[in-house]
Order: sequence, then structure tokens, then C-alpha cells
Amino acid sequence: MGSPVHRVSMVDTWSRQVHPDIDSERYVQSFDVERLTNILDGGAQNTVLRRKVEMIIHSNPEFNRVDNYFMTQNERYQAAVKKTFHLQMIAQRLGWLEGGRELDYAYRTLSGDLTLNLHRVFQKALRSLGSDEQIAKWDPLCQKLQIITTYAQTELGHGTYLQGLETEATYDATTQEFVIHSPTMTATKWWPGDLGRTATHALVQAQLICSGAPQGMHAFIVPIRSLEDHTPLPGITVGDIGPKMDFDQTDNGFLQLDHVRIPRENMLNRFAQVLPDGTYTRLGTVQNNYLGMVVVRVELLLGEVLPLLQKACVIAMRYSVIRRQSRLRPRDPEAKVLDYQTQQQKLFPPLARCYAFHFLAVSLLEFFQHSYTAILDGDLSSLPELHALTSGMKAMVSEFCTQGAETCRRACGGHGYSKLSGLPSLVTKVAASCTYEGENTVLYLQVARFLVKSYLQAQVSPSLSQRSLPQSVAYLTVPDLARCPAQQAADFLFPELYTTAWAHVAVRLIKDSVHHLQTLTQSGADQYEAWNQTTVIHLRAAKAHCHYVIVKTFKEALKQLENEPAIHQVLKRLCDLHALHGILTNSGDFLYDGFLSGAQVDTVRTAYLDLLRLIRKDAILLTDAFDFTDQCLNSALGCYDGNVYERLFQWAQKSPTNTQGNPAYEKYIKPLLQNQRSKL
Amino acid sequence: MGSPVHRVSMVDTWSRQVHPDIDSERYVQSFDVERLTNILDGGAQNTVLRRKVEMIIHSNPEFNRVDNYFMTQNERYQAAVKKTFHLQMIAQRLGWLEGGRELDYAYRTLSGDLTLNLHRVFQKALRSLGSDEQIAKWDPLCQKLQIITTYAQTELGHGTYLQGLETEATYDATTQEFVIHSPTMTATKWWPGDLGRTATHALVQAQLICSGAPQGMHAFIVPIRSLEDHTPLPGITVGDIGPKMDFDQTDNGFLQLDHVRIPRENMLNRFAQVLPDGTYTRLGTVQNNYLGMVVVRVELLLGEVLPLLQKACVIAMRYSVIRRQSRLRPRDPEAKVLDYQTQQQKLFPPLARCYAFHFLAVSLLEFFQHSYTAILDGDLSSLPELHALTSGMKAMVSEFCTQGAETCRRACGGHGYSKLSGLPSLVTKVAASCTYEGENTVLYLQVARFLVKSYLQAQVSPSLSQRSLPQSVAYLTVPDLARCPAQQAADFLFPELYTTAWAHVAVRLIKDSVHHLQTLTQSGADQYEAWNQTTVIHLRAAKAHCHYVIVKTFKEALKQLENEPAIHQVLKRLCDLHALHGILTNSGDFLYDGFLSGAQVDTVRTAYLDLLRLIRKDAILLTDAFDFTDQCLNSALGCYDGNVYERLFQWAQKSPTNTQGNPAYEKYIKPLLQNQRSKL
Repeated sequence: MGSPVHRVSMVDTWSRQVHPDIDSERYVQSFDVERLTNILDGGAQNTVLRRKVEMIIHSNPEFNRVDNYFMTQNERYQAAVKKTFHLQMIAQRLGWLEGGRELDYAYRTLSGDLTLNLHRVFQKALRSLGSDEQIAKWDPLCQKLQIITTYAQTELGHGTYLQGLETEATYDATTQEFVIHSPTMTATKWWPGDLGRTATHALVQAQLICSGAPQGMHAFIVPIRSLEDHTPLPGITVGDIGPKMDFDQTDNGFLQLDHVRIPRENMLNRFAQVLPDGTYTRLGTVQNNYLGMVVVRVELLLGEVLPLLQKACVIAMRYSVIRRQSRLRPRDPEAKVLDYQTQQQKLFPPLARCYAFHFLAVSLLEFFQHSYTAILDGDLSSLPELHALTSGMKAMVSEFCTQGAETCRRACGGHGYSKLSGLPSLVTKVAASCTYEGENTVLYLQVARFLVKSYLQAQVSPSLSQRSLPQSVAYLTVPDLARCPAQQAADFLFPELYTTAWAHVAVRLIKDSVHHLQTLTQSGADQYEAWNQTTVIHLRAAKAHCHYVIVKTFKEALKQLENEPAIHQVLKRLCDLHALHGILTNSGDFLYDGFLSGAQVDTVRTAYLDLLRLIRKDAILLTDAFDFTDQCLNSALGCYDGNVYERLFQWAQKSPTNTQGNPAYEKYIKPLLQNQRSKL
Repeated sequence: MGSPVHRVSMVDTWSRQVHPDIDSERYVQSFDVERLTNILDGGAQNTVLRRKVEMIIHSNPEFNRVDNYFMTQNERYQAAVKKTFHLQMIAQRLGWLEGGRELDYAYRTLSGDLTLNLHRVFQKALRSLGSDEQIAKWDPLCQKLQIITTYAQTELGHGTYLQGLETEATYDATTQEFVIHSPTMTATKWWPGDLGRTATHALVQAQLICSGAPQGMHAFIVPIRSLEDHTPLPGITVGDIGPKMDFDQTDNGFLQLDHVRIPRENMLNRFAQVLPDGTYTRLGTVQNNYLGMVVVRVELLLGEVLPLLQKACVIAMRYSVIRRQSRLRPRDPEAKVLDYQTQQQKLFPPLARCYAFHFLAVSLLEFFQHSYTAILDGDLSSLPELHALTSGMKAMVSEFCTQGAETCRRACGGHGYSKLSGLPSLVTKVAASCTYEGENTVLYLQVARFLVKSYLQAQVSPSLSQRSLPQSVAYLTVPDLARCPAQQAADFLFPELYTTAWAHVAVRLIKDSVHHLQTLTQSGADQYEAWNQTTVIHLRAAKAHCHYVIVKTFKEALKQLENEPAIHQVLKRLCDLHALHGILTNSGDFLYDGFLSGAQVDTVRTAYLDLLRLIRKDAILLTDAFDFTDQCLNSALGCYDGNVYERLFQWAQKSPTNTQGNPAYEKYIKPLLQNQRSKL
């Protein structure tokens, strides 16, 4: 199972030979690729298990995805339902449990090809917001797929601002029911996945009204389709929202509720409940309502967002050692494009981010799991930091994964524009992550509010706050250097040094944002106006903080690998590259107060350019380590064997544009050519 | 015709009323929107003519495009052929001539919906590279559409690097024919538009071989499909390259030539010819071969690239005054998202670029037309500057239009991800412009080579070069300020000041890049290695130069509008915003050598944030001025009347995902639900 052979596509005859231009990249291995794969998988036993699952999936013809790029939205949806069905059958047969590793690996392998993803979001929300009795009732129904569920929050007129949602749940004490209603066109639920054509039940977020008083957002389980024949239930108008930039396989839907009645027990009531007589009782803070979203955000990064950048890097890197273009010297053969400095400058920073974000997400997941148990037990002290961290990291990771995937796509020139390269769909898919589960700007500004509070807290009582400040902002109290002491390029390769540099910039920008806020307030603006007029400044501070957290986390992950020198060396180069690239891209922030001089920035650049050259020889191995199968990549440019052009040519032949004839010829082209000729 | 009424969609019943939230944006007009439209159109008479053409197009049901978002690639192609056919009929009937304004306006209106675009590229290349006799023979055939042509340059294995193209044209003196041949799989022509299913003739770029000697790239007219029945001619393998990120309407194709024979006269021979006995004569420099591409690049900007950003701005801006989200103050109604500083920060810099790039493209076109005549007459002196300017501007405009369109898309949140918003297709279309007609990195590096040469020329003979240097790099010889003299925010609003600031940075970076190049050469690297190891640095210099040119051109365009104070004022704000945004985004370059201090950068930011507030009240008017019809925008979010949600809801109902049933239910969903139930 350890051999890379299983990654090579088995259906193409030419794949029996690996292209010499990519083969030569694998001759000399400065580190053990398999060991790095094991680290990414969280242990060798996981790698074995993952490959076993991949084998099972790939050997089943029902999961073939080669035709994906030729399908309509309807065909993609149907194929996804079919694959989901077959996966359920396999899971049943082999005893794969929801939440178990096998199914997680199956989801990774079939990512973008399955439906019923919201079913798991529903379950997470149920477990966060439901009482024990409610979980006991609904969770087994979900697990056994006796119902298919979705999570219906956003509306046509409202997304991010939860309090603005218009859907109403009015309690009727006479029948002990809630009346769920969409009072306006803009109250129509819009976007929930699996809603358009699939789900039987929806978790509807609605404004609770008890005895005439609004009580804020609460979650209600609403049956929407008949379990007998799947038709919409009375009062339900439901359908699909139509074509999107990607996610053709998902039936994102709309839902209008016309005075739909559900029993009192269908309001999730771990943190609030309505008694039969209509008395409303809060059993926790309103913050708990957001907990479901926090969970989703954290798991999203590792499961959905980061793999898209990793795949883009694999494809672009492999293509870049096959593609030859122009000559480095007049008499040389044409060079591999990866040997050009500008191509390295395009591909290596995203590659470094793949690793930075991986270690970040793993660390975030640990922190989340640690905090989550405490929160469910009623200890909310870690919630603000958890919220800020997951918000900021979701925003920054999705932003850079999107940017990186597009960079990879463009780095493949014209062929990167062909859907058969796999890159366009990676880009259009990852782009959605900047918006879903919290729009990035809104998330960054939530980080900013947390930073302002933390900063003021640190100011009020520096000695006290050093202990009490959340760990991710503890650097606000650490004494700061005014100037960076680095002299030579080698000095900039100390993780402690560049982490401190990022801390310096973050502290300054946070201080600056608070200063601007206070100046405006002191000059007469009210706090809301002052906030709005400084959000551009706060945004910068929040991003600098996120940069710092990511660099620091990568540094800490490296420390744990010190006993594996070869792996440590190659990952440290990526960590250095990541940090220095960040400094160069934001050099103004480091030059602003003279923390770095112009000469020092030049030195950073020298160090950075040296790193590009060093990473070059390991580039293919570092992407091989992600261990995506050819079937999973589904890219004519990115297969393990490097037979790019043959595959692109062969795949194109199967396109409906070549197989379905050209009726436009008889109807328009022929008349056009002849109409004109007849006039002569 | 001057009324905006014609812009309002006539088919939707709700559009009789303009939404009050957008109506109020048009109450107070600080400038005459119609006059600004006239300026953009190049005169009021052009506006009238354009609207007349739009009326003709929109009143013809054949040109309806509402269903575009629901079509497959095949359907889009067929619809495009149909529309092209009908446009030809109208043009014939009304006497619209190719190259005339009416057809240009028709192309603008139907952009993305037509085919036969490469036909015009063929004609341009013919006129640049063909002899007078060849033009006399082929041009009328093209004009009368007796043949349909394409331009076949890029190959499966080669794009940017022309000398690497593998297609061969071997002269056979015995029959006075060229034998056109694809010797390898990678020599397959790949990407040419209209080639896949439409064209009858291709202009094939191929390596000329005369008497066994290779003579470099030349252009050959090759018949590829029968004029009788459209089948591929002997030796021709031709087809479609399959699905792409966008451009579904275009049949980008592949072409393999198996020893295809064409007469000697089919080689375009304005600049080189092959005599009957096989003697090869050059009649001009090899540079002329590139002239065709230069032409295309220039017209591309105004005709294809910039309108995509403009449309994205219109859509995002209009949606941003309808969309309300969250409250600025606790008791306020929810605020228009455009009132948030962060939304302004997203949308106003791209808006400013719409205007900056418009004036740039107009000026570039003038310069091109001026130089072109001279070049055809054999005076090649302006060619290097023309090449560098068009390369750099194509790269920077396409880069920022792509970035800006995506920013606009994301600024519309979830709805920006729906194809019905029109934004996804604008983004995926404009993204192609970073690659086609010269990959941007390659183009920037060609600018860099020009800058290195110009800089060295200026060093050798400063007094002489002041006169002889091309105008766009004349600033290399102007004495430079070491420090920016600006003190207050108002000081940064002098166009002369910020143009000089950009010149300072460009000069420093060019100097820096030359210095690095020379240092490497002196330390023993050969010139090629030295170039490759400094390309990242050259890239920065080239971009700074391009920034400077764009700022300077906007400044000069403003000067010509000084007699229209209201228009001048509003455009000057955009010019200021554009320049200051550029400084802030690249602040490191200005801080590096102390040209700006940290305090000055703060002042720039203050000025920039003030501008956001000032531009806010004109934002809708500034996008209205582009005067796109609703039909042309084809966006549920961007219509003139602001009835966003109704339109989104209505359009979604027509999606095939709602109209074609759900066979997946009976096949998979029902068994899934029942399979599980039966097990209980």
C-alpha cells in the first residue's frame, strides 16, 4: 500500500510509463515522502486506512468521475445522489460509521461528487442546540437516513446578519404549536444545500415570538416533504435556486413557509425553551446559538477548503515540470517552466501555505475539541477566543486558498483554463468559501473587535492581563523590540525572529486601530460612526494578527518534528518561505516605523529568493506527499505519470461538443456561406 | 434617446417601479450623467448611435439572452451561431459595415453571445502580414463571409514561445506548394476560436523550411473544411477542445495537419517571400510578424476586457444600495451595505480603475494609430515602445480587471455566487484575459527588458537620451526628489505630486533591477542565468512603471476636462483615489528609501478614506454613466430599477433544475429512505 503505483490511473494505456521529465524529479529524495504523508495523515496507520478506502472507492465503477466536466447541473446532481446512495450501501455493508475515519476518507476522495452534506450540518446543530431528549429522538432518524435534513438559515434578503432574519415562529398556546411563516418575499430561505430537491426536514432558523414578544433567533425542525412521495407538505413552497459558479452537484434551494404548524417539541431547547403556556425561559447565553457555526467552520478548513489548494498545487507543479517553454540559454533545450524564477514565485508560496494551513487547522481542531467540552458543560470562558480564532482563520485560510488556487490555475497558462485541467472547478469551488459560513470581511471585523477588547484589557492592567489574556493575544503584553536585529539573510531564517516581527506589526496595527477609534470618539463621533469610519484600519490589524497566528503555529509544529531532521529541514524551508513571503508582500507594515530598514527588506528578499531555489528540487515530492489519487484529482494536467498532452487530447475527444454533431451548420453556417455566395 | 428609461427591462412587470433605495441615489446629481456618458462614448452623437443600435438589437427576440445561464456548452455555441447569423442579416439590411461604429456597438451589446470573432483577427493579421495582392484576394472573401476564418497559432505543447512552435511548412519546389504538417502530438494546434466546428480556413503559424533550412515562423492560409459540405479536407483532423472555464459560445478547437499541401501564394508575404525555386527572401524585420498581435492587444482592452469590469461594478454597486445588512446604530434601520466603509473600500478602487483604464485605452489607441501608419511604411522606430506599452498595459489592465471583477462578485455575498447575478461569468471570462494574447508574466518581463535597455541608454548619455528616449520612459532622465514634500492630506490631492511619486518608485525599482542584474553578471553568472535569477525583481520594476503610466495618463485626461468643472471634480476624485490606493497597496515601495515617511503614509490613508466618503454619493451615477442596458448586463442583481430579489426569485423558477423533474428521487432517494425504514 505504500507504493505510489496505486495513484497512477489504471485506465489509460499510456500511463504504464511515467514521463521522464517527472520521473527525474523523483530520483533523488532529500526526505522520505511516505513519512511526510504519514505525518499529514496523523500517523502511518491512517495512511494505510485511507488508501484502503480509496481502493474500494476507485475499484467501484459507480464512482467514476471522468465525465464530470461534460455534465449539466441536473446530471451532476443526479450523479451525486447516485454516488451518495452507493456510498451508503458500501458503508452499511462494511460497517463504516458516520464520524468514523473510513467515511471521512471516502468524503475526501469523493469531494465535490456527493450530496447530503447538509445532513451532517443538521446533526451537528442538533447535538449543539438540542436537549438530550431531542437528540435521542432525531439523531437516530438522521443516522439511519429515515429522514434527510438540511440547515435553513440564510434568506433571500439576509445572510450574515442573523438578527435580521425575517422568518417567524409564533407560538400558539392553544394548540401548543409553532406557526412558522415567511412574511415577505425577502424572508424566503435561500441557499441551503440539499433543500432544493432532496431534504425531507429542515432546521429552520426563525425569530421566536412568544405571547407577542420577539425572543430572537431559535432553531426549529420543520418537515418539508412527504416521507411517502416526497411532495412538498401543505404550506411549503420549495425549489432549487438555479445555476451557480460551482457546486452543481448540490441542490441549493429556496423555501417559503406559509403558516406551517409544527409541534412545540420541535424547537431545539438545550439553551432556551417555551413552556406549554407560552412562557419563554432562557437556559444559557445567546452565544450558544452560534456554536454550531463555529464547529462547522473549524472542520471546513481541513475537510473542504485546504484540499482544494493542495490539489491545485499538485496539478500546477506536475504540469510545470512537463511543460517546457523558451530557453534559459540560446543553445539549451527548452526549459521546464518550473525552472523559471517567476514560476517558482507563483507556485511555492501557495505550496508553503498548504503546509502552514494544515498545521494551523490541526492545532485549531485540538483547541476546539479542548474548549468544546468545557462549553457544553457551561464554562463559556474560552468562547470569545474560540470565536475570534476560528473566524479569523476561516477568513484568512479561505482568502489565501482562493488566491493560491487561481495563481496555480494561471501558472498553467491556456491549459489551466480548460476544465479538463481540473483547475477551473477547484478555483470556482474554493472561491465560495470566502462567502459561506461567514463572509470574510465580517469575520475579520469580529476578530478586530476581539483585538480591541483584548488590547484595552492589556492596557488597563498589564500585569494582571499577562495571565488572564487569551493565549492567542498574549503577545500584546510582551515587551516589544523597536528595531529588528537581523543583519544577514541567514538571520531571517530564525522562526523566533520572524514570528516576533509579525507580532511587532500586529501589535502596532492593533494599537493604531484603537488610537484611531478613540480619536474619532473624542472628536465627537458616536461609537458606531467611529467604528464604521475606522473599519478599513481594523481590517488591517485583524489580518496582521491572523498572519502572526499562522506563522507562530507553523513554527510550533516544526518544533515537534525536530527529531526527524530530513523532514524538518524541508518543512522549515517552507515555513521560512511562508513567513518571508508575508513580510515582502506587506513590507510597508514593517518599514513604516523603521522596524525593518530598506536594506533589511532587501536582505529578506535575498533570503526569499534563495529559498525558492532550495525548494525547487523538492517541489514535486512535496506535492506527491499530499497523496491524492489520479481519480481524486481528475485532472488531465495533474496525473502522477505526467502524460499531460496525451490525456488532454484524449479527454477532449469525449466532449459533447465533439460527439453530438453540429446542427448549427445546416441551420446557420451553411446559409451564411451560401447566402453570401449567391449574391455574387 | 437620452432618457435612462430605455435601460429598464421591458419584460418584467415589477420593473415599472424603480426601487426607492436606488431611486434616492439618483435624486441629487452633482454632475450631468448623460454628459459623462457622452465623454466615455467619445461624443454625444456616438451615444445616440449606440443607443439606436441597442434598440434594434433588443427589440429583436432572436437576441434574447436571458436563458444563457441555463444552457449547455453545445446550446450556447448554437445560440451564438444563430445570433451571429441574425446580426449579419441585420448588418446587410441596414448597411452596417465591418469596422463601422454600428457593428462595434452591436458587438459591445452582444458581447459573449457571438461567434466568428477570430474571423476579424484573421483579417487584421492578413492586412498586417499580407501583400497588397493577397489582401485584394482574401479580404473580400472574408468580408462577404464566403469563407469563415480563424487564426491558428498556439499548439498543445507551445503557446507564448513562438519559436518553439512545431508545425512545419516545407516548401516543395517541384509543385510550388507548401506541405503543412504536424510532426508530433504536441504540434497539434490547440485553442484557436471558431476552429472546432465553424471555420473553413485557418491562418496557420508554422516553421518555414526552404531547401532544408528553417526560416522561422510564417503565416499560411490553409483551407480546412469543404466549402460544399463543411467536412474536414484530406489530411485535416479537427475538433473542439471541450469544456472551458467560460467562453462556451466559442468553439475553441484543435487541428492536426498531415502533410497538407497549399499553393505557394498562400504564405503571407508582405515581409518575406519564397520564390518559385525555393529561394527565401526577407523583406522586413522579423518584428513585423508580431504586429498582428499588438493590434489585437490594443483593441482588446477597450472592446473585451474593460467592459467586463465595468459591468461587474455596475452590478455590485446597484446591489449594494438595495442590500441592507446590520445596523450602523442600534436603533437605526438596517443600513445599505454601500454605507459601510469596508464595502466602499471594495468597490470604489475598481470603479476608479474603470475610468483610469478607459482613458488609458483611448490614449493607447491614439498612440497605436499614430505609430501604425509609420510602421507599415517601414519606420520601425516606435515599435519597441509600442510593444512595451501595449504588453505592459494589456498585462496590468487584465490583471486588475480580473481582480476587480472578483472583488465585485464577492462584495455581493452569496448572491454574487449565483450565475443569475451575472458576476460569475464576468469573472470567469475576464480571467482568461490574463492568459490569452500574451501571458501576463511574460508580457511584464518584456516590459522589463525594454526598461533595462532604456535605463542603460539614459545612463550612457543623459543629455542625449532626454531627447531620444521614448516618451513613456522619459521620466528616467528627470531629476528626482529624494523626499516627498507633501505635509497634509490635501497635499496628496495634487496629480503632479502623486505622478511624481510613482515616477520616483519606478525609477528606483528599475535602477535596482539593473543593479542586481549587473551584480550577478559581475560575480560570474552568465547573462541568461543572471536574468532568470532576477526576474522576480524585474517584475516589480515593470509593474511600478505600468502603475506610473496609468496614473500619468489619467492625470493628462483630466486636464482636458478642466472646462467641465462638475465632471472634472468627480473624475478627479477617482483619479486621486486610484493613485492613493495604489500608494497604500504598495506602501513598502514608497517607505523603502524614505521617500514617504510613516506619518506621510498615514496622511495618504486619511486622504484616501475621505475620498471614499466623497465618492459614495456619486457612486450609482458613476456606474449609470457606463450606460449598459439591462439586457446587456443580464444580471438579476444589476438591473437599473433595483428590483433585485423579485428578479432573482423569478429567474430561478425557470432553471432546468426546477423544470425538468427529479428522476433521482425514484431511483435513489426513495430507495435510500425506504431501505433504511424497512430495516427497522
